[in-house]
Amino acid sequence: MARSRKATQPERRVRYAVVGLGHIAQVAVLPAFSHAENSVLSALVSDDSEKLEKLGRKYKVKARFSYDQYEDCLRSGAVDAVYIALPNHLHREYSERAARAGVHILCEKPMAVTEEDCLSMIRVAEENQVKLMVAYRLHFEEANLKAIDIVQSGRLGDPRLFDSIFTMTVKPGDIRLNPRELGGGTLYDIGIYCINAVRNLFGAEPMEVVAFSANNGDQRFLQCEETTSAILRFPGRERLASFTCSFGATDVSSYRVVGTRGELVMDPAYEYAGELKQRVTVDGRTRTRTFSPRDQFAPELISFSDCILRGAAPEPSGWEGLADVRVIRALYRSADTGQPVTLAPFSKDDRPSLEQELSRPPVREPALVNTEAPSE
Amino acid sequence: MARSRKATQPERRVRYAVVGLGHIAQVAVLPAFSHAENSVLSALVSDDSEKLEKLGRKYKVKARFSYDQYEDCLRSGAVDAVYIALPNHLHREYSERAARAGVHILCEKPMAVTEEDCLSMIRVAEENQVKLMVAYRLHFEEANLKAIDIVQSGRLGDPRLFDSIFTMTVKPGDIRLNPRELGGGTLYDIGIYCINAVRNLFGAEPMEVVAFSANNGDQRFLQCEETTSAILRFPGRERLASFTCSFGATDVSSYRVVGTRGELVMDPAYEYAGELKQRVTVDGRTRTRTFSPRDQFAPELISFSDCILRGAAPEPSGWEGLADVRVIRALYRSADTGQPVTLAPFSKDDRPSLEQELSRPPVREPALVNTEAPSE
Repeated sequence: MARSRKATQPERRVRYAVVGLGHIAQVAVLPAFSHAENSVLSALVSDDSEKLEKLGRKYKVKARFSYDQYEDCLRSGAVDAVYIALPNHLHREYSERAARAGVHILCEKPMAVTEEDCLSMIRVAEENQVKLMVAYRLHFEEANLKAIDIVQSGRLGDPRLFDSIFTMTVKPGDIRLNPRELGGGTLYDIGIYCINAVRNLFGAEPMEVVAFSANNGDQRFLQCEETTSAILRFPGRERLASFTCSFGATDVSSYRVVGTRGELVMDPAYEYAGELKQRVTVDGRTRTRTFSPRDQFAPELISFSDCILRGAAPEPSGWEGLADVRVIRALYRSADTGQPVTLAPFSKDDRPSLEQELSRPPVREPALVNTEAPSE
Repeated sequence: MARSRKATQPERRVRYAVVGLGHIAQVAVLPAFSHAENSVLSALVSDDSEKLEKLGRKYKVKARFSYDQYEDCLRSGAVDAVYIALPNHLHREYSERAARAGVHILCEKPMAVTEEDCLSMIRVAEENQVKLMVAYRLHFEEANLKAIDIVQSGRLGDPRLFDSIFTMTVKPGDIRLNPRELGGGTLYDIGIYCINAVRNLFGAEPMEVVAFSANNGDQRFLQCEETTSAILRFPGRERLASFTCSFGATDVSSYRVVGTRGELVMDPAYEYAGELKQRVTVDGRTRTRTFSPRDQFAPELISFSDCILRGAAPEPSGWEGLADVRVIRALYRSADTGQPVTLAPFSKDDRPSLEQELSRPPVREPALVNTEAPSE
């Protein structure tokens, strides 16, 4: 069950600038502040004056900046942290500039486009003594944390395999369809959910991967692939994981873990707006549970602010962001070359667990300003 | 709905020898004759005298032969056809000997261990003017044929991807754990269901495949792999299919086809004893349907006997058997070498369709003689 933390007013609230006011910022990040008792929305950064004006009025935020004024924003003394909701290829630059101004960074996933970018962000944050968290909303979500708990508990026996499908119909012109060097493509946007899920369900890092990409030939997919299917090999008692993610098929968001004694199915698994469903079958007996929608973004703010206020280390950290990006890059290398790719050893001690679950009521979808949903 | 063919006595019934009296013969093939009005069980072939004695008495079959007496059986004038239920590496030899004696061949899948074996069986059957069918029970089963019909009808829009899991916990010492040259391993036994399903759902043949095999290190898996995950690329508007099959995980038998407008889930998909479930979601509306258990083996006998009696061409043919074996072999080549494998062009005009659906009531599981279920 979700622990309902008391919404007592903390001594100090962390003041955020939200940088980038696209779809996810408008439908999820800005509304989340009303549920994040230790966080306050203090500034908006965008080049769209209408967004600044309308959203600034709506959320009563007077500090509004263009991207040219980003440095002013960072050094205004009015913000303690940024929430980076920019296109993927800008994550590094805007994160590092924040760090150098002594401002903490909560950065959307994927953390960045390359491993080098991720490592640089980690280093710059550390050298400037600011906290860095990557915004994996499912690290605070009950159904997904419960799944990790069930798999890790041994209730399914030895977990032998993971399989996942994450698909959507992306509209022409959407930023997700950018060329890969700008962080476009299925793996950066949705494949990352499958990778992050299996890494934490298995509590391990893949050692070898292979991928096929495909393209149905639509105009939409001139600059990035339509679909990628991947297989990941995990060490130890050799586990296999597979997933397929596509921008060209109807909405599916599902994963399955099959163990020696039982299986766990999440379907839907990755959504932030609707309910999630979990089906666990052990020794032939099935239990199904539905998790009603909740605000998955406020918990990120609450957890990150708490780390800042308490001087604690965030989970998910920059290393967690890097762990996924290096797999994404290996998979694209495989899809490009037609060869399996061996990954360098990589270990992580810090894993999400039920202890970090946080429950807040769902937000209502707000009216959108100069943006639209990415998919049909 | 299943067409209920009238069980009128045909002018002539095809007389079968069942060759090999292992688990599948005992639980499924022998009992099926009671539902196959145009077929009659006329002879048994086995080296186990207790099986011959007990099963011969039970099914009132007087013509009983050891493998040494196989030729006598074929040339006794008492059989028109054989049902080959032998270990996979013996399929070719026992099929070709039947053909040379002018006896028709209904052969369990996989058709044989290599493409060369399959081609030879096709040629020998043709040169000796006998019919050859490969025993794909799901080619007559309503839920799976309905799935093909739905996908081919365009109700899901353009089918973009297929994903499947087929797993079981195979007992130590089972024949499925044989070395690969004897037709052991996951792909020959259960992967073949995934391959056959997607080939007929997409109505196409894969052009490139890749696979990873894995092994948990159990004694059981000294001679064959525990698990294989595969990705198949299909031509045209580039579709991807993925599946994982394992002998080391709890029972799962499921597939999913995701199209541009909807998805179809079969779960369970491949079972012969229990019910099958189909869930179709189109434009957000879901319909679920359960198919109660039925005898999936009598339809094979009925269809094959009908081909013999009418002089018609069987579906599934030897070419259908070959179509799967060549994919299995390419996948193992990929798993062994770590390289994707390109398949030579191959086309098939003849595909299973709802027209060949046949419904017969389920059989009761009989008492077993010197055999046991392959899995826990």
